[in-house]
Amino acid sequence: MFAQEIIARKRDGFALSRDEIGQFVDGVVSGAFTDYQSSALLMAIVLRGMSEAETAWLTEAMMHSGRVADLSEISRPKVDKHSTGGVGDKVSLILAPLAAACGLCVPMMSGRGLGHTGGTLDKLDAIPGFRVDLDDAAYRRQLSEAHLALIGQSADMVPADRKLYALRDVTATVESIPLICASILSKKLAEGIDALVLDVKCGRGAFMKTEPEARELAEALVKISRGVGKPTSALITRMDQPLGKAVGNSLEVVEAIDCLKGKGPPDLMEVSYALVAEMLLLGGICQRPDEAEERMEAAITDGRALDAFRELVCAQGGDPAVIEDYGRFPRARERFELCYPGDAPAYLSKLDALAVGEAARLLGAGRAHAESEIDLAVGFVFRKKPGDRLQPGEVMAIIHYNDADKLEAAEARLQTALEYSPDKPEQPGLIIDRLSGV
Amino acid sequence: MFAQEIIARKRDGFALSRDEIGQFVDGVVSGAFTDYQSSALLMAIVLRGMSEAETAWLTEAMMHSGRVADLSEISRPKVDKHSTGGVGDKVSLILAPLAAACGLCVPMMSGRGLGHTGGTLDKLDAIPGFRVDLDDAAYRRQLSEAHLALIGQSADMVPADRKLYALRDVTATVESIPLICASILSKKLAEGIDALVLDVKCGRGAFMKTEPEARELAEALVKISRGVGKPTSALITRMDQPLGKAVGNSLEVVEAIDCLKGKGPPDLMEVSYALVAEMLLLGGICQRPDEAEERMEAAITDGRALDAFRELVCAQGGDPAVIEDYGRFPRARERFELCYPGDAPAYLSKLDALAVGEAARLLGAGRAHAESEIDLAVGFVFRKKPGDRLQPGEVMAIIHYNDADKLEAAEARLQTALEYSPDKPEQPGLIIDRLSGV
Repeated sequence: MFAQEIIARKRDGFALSRDEIGQFVDGVVSGAFTDYQSSALLMAIVLRGMSEAETAWLTEAMMHSGRVADLSEISRPKVDKHSTGGVGDKVSLILAPLAAACGLCVPMMSGRGLGHTGGTLDKLDAIPGFRVDLDDAAYRRQLSEAHLALIGQSADMVPADRKLYALRDVTATVESIPLICASILSKKLAEGIDALVLDVKCGRGAFMKTEPEARELAEALVKISRGVGKPTSALITRMDQPLGKAVGNSLEVVEAIDCLKGKGPPDLMEVSYALVAEMLLLGGICQRPDEAEERMEAAITDGRALDAFRELVCAQGGDPAVIEDYGRFPRARERFELCYPGDAPAYLSKLDALAVGEAARLLGAGRAHAESEIDLAVGFVFRKKPGDRLQPGEVMAIIHYNDADKLEAAEARLQTALEYSPDKPEQPGLIIDRLSGV
Repeated sequence: MFAQEIIARKRDGFALSRDEIGQFVDGVVSGAFTDYQSSALLMAIVLRGMSEAETAWLTEAMMHSGRVADLSEISRPKVDKHSTGGVGDKVSLILAPLAAACGLCVPMMSGRGLGHTGGTLDKLDAIPGFRVDLDDAAYRRQLSEAHLALIGQSADMVPADRKLYALRDVTATVESIPLICASILSKKLAEGIDALVLDVKCGRGAFMKTEPEARELAEALVKISRGVGKPTSALITRMDQPLGKAVGNSLEVVEAIDCLKGKGPPDLMEVSYALVAEMLLLGGICQRPDEAEERMEAAITDGRALDAFRELVCAQGGDPAVIEDYGRFPRARERFELCYPGDAPAYLSKLDALAVGEAARLLGAGRAHAESEIDLAVGFVFRKKPGDRLQPGEVMAIIHYNDADKLEAAEARLQTALEYSPDKPEQPGLIIDRLSGV
């Protein structure tokens, strides 16, 4: 079948067969489907949609477009998490060691960020010496011994997604539930996991701005993932303000370590605990949420979660001394105190995640383009979050910066994130819904 | 504005602005819109449509993507015809000299065919010496002196259409009324014409298979063309059987010359006369159809139409002796007589244009791919057309061929085109409707 015949079938609203989808994905990798043919088909998929069966076939074809990891020799339940991403989202750095300390194996492959701040791999770059490019043998050895790894996806895995994602980004074909599902799930399933937990973020600082959109994506992800045979849960979590107090790569790693030391901010701990609890339930380590809760709290309290993080850092070549000495992280040369400008006491009523994210990017913490350099040291630490009381002149946030021009732009943007109120504002819960797989 | 923002607007169902459309067309030519971005936008246009205003802007932007001919120094009304194409359609070869003989200037730029038989330029290749690549100065001189030219489009005209057409062909984005309108009209309007007549063919052997589809295209073409300021008429004509008796490049030129000598088959003359009549009315040469009819018949009868053809051939370097000596055309080495196989007299009730076209292509008369070579000599001459009486063993058609294997394939396909009936079948009129611009 010619590429244009497959494109024409989707254009005309027909469901594609498993064979046609396979031909497309193979063709993307081999070049038999040219970029311009792929983008025409992608646009037809965006506008005509895909059934559950088509999306599952697309996911499986993409997953099998390269090497699929075989972790069958590892006896622990292998469970991973994927988040659709948000501002200040350093949950992976907490979740992976915590889950490993609770008895799971976490074979996490992550990406670099294109957005407000870096992705998980960028954050890990802040740990001196830390390597994310393990070869397959080292990766498996580490999973057997340390029960967790945080690495980049190797070039021989899911090549179809890499090609299609780059194309979607520049052809306005990102916004499609079936394409998003297939992209996320093909990558996660190629890791060789037994089960998957999804954090679908919802709100101003998230890809999905509204609850119905987030719910649609969460439900689709869960259906497709279970449909290809993986026990899967999803949480829909609120992303209207940054998660935790730190935004910026080094600063977020520091905050994640604080969490593992039992000194984490409540919002960040709430989301991390909720996700790890789902992982423990799916992995069969715990049978009930309260049991998971106890197990996680114990792992933090007795230091086993922090030990797992230390083991991870050592195994991947990082300097474990950073865990006790935060001065070893990349540090910005300058700090600026952002103060409450009102002349009467008030409450902070809003800290808009989108504006904070954009301000962080202006400061240099994120990428505007795929080739941009990230400044690992810069970012914000918020002393006040929505609902907190403010006194005139009180410091609300510390801006860590290296460049006065960038400070100016970032501060101006950050000001637009802030709103004040004389009355204490309601703070809705972070966990909007739970689509549990057990 | 980024390409992906323009794509996203059309994806989301918004009308594009004149500026956005201009940026797209400029970007196609400059490369600022990559092929994969163009094909994503083309698919979004196929599925979301374009308003009349958008289509007119697209037409104008494409028309101005290269040089627009300026024929203002030519005093005669400059009127051209475009046909959506059909099997055995050699009307241009009759119409252009006839219209010139009746007082018009016909600056016709044509294409090569990708389909059942060659395009007008391929047919003209059958005339020994005939050149279709005149430069601008020679073209204008010829139009001033001979009042007609039949040439290929020069490379500096409508480059956006050339790029987009090649892309549409391989990305299943051909079937779109706005894109078809803009492609057809941008090329014709760049010729510098005063008025335009369209032959929108309808039926088995046409691009538009049904009357509602053909009507939709005809109405859109007329609206857009008039909207950009050109008096325009359209005929909707039937294309269920081949037009005339000859199918194949040399054979069709011979039949066209026969028409100019007053010996043309009635169906071919009916369509040619109807189209030239519209041209004469739009060009202001005639005020009423019966006046046009008289003028055309006189031009055939007194030989002025044939003289105009001879002048065209001479002006473009062709051998005018072909007009009297058909033996000078490329001739096939072999002939095969296709006979009526029944053993009782009957009527030919069907000669399916699509099957005839495919048979002609199998014989070598048309291109399967853009790079294919055409055999100018091969083709069919039908002695019988639907409605004609057949005696057992009577010859229905002569197949002119050079290759016995191709004959076999073509004859087998041609057999599927034929149906017989004991009763004389009704033959509906060829002119289905007339959307007159006067």
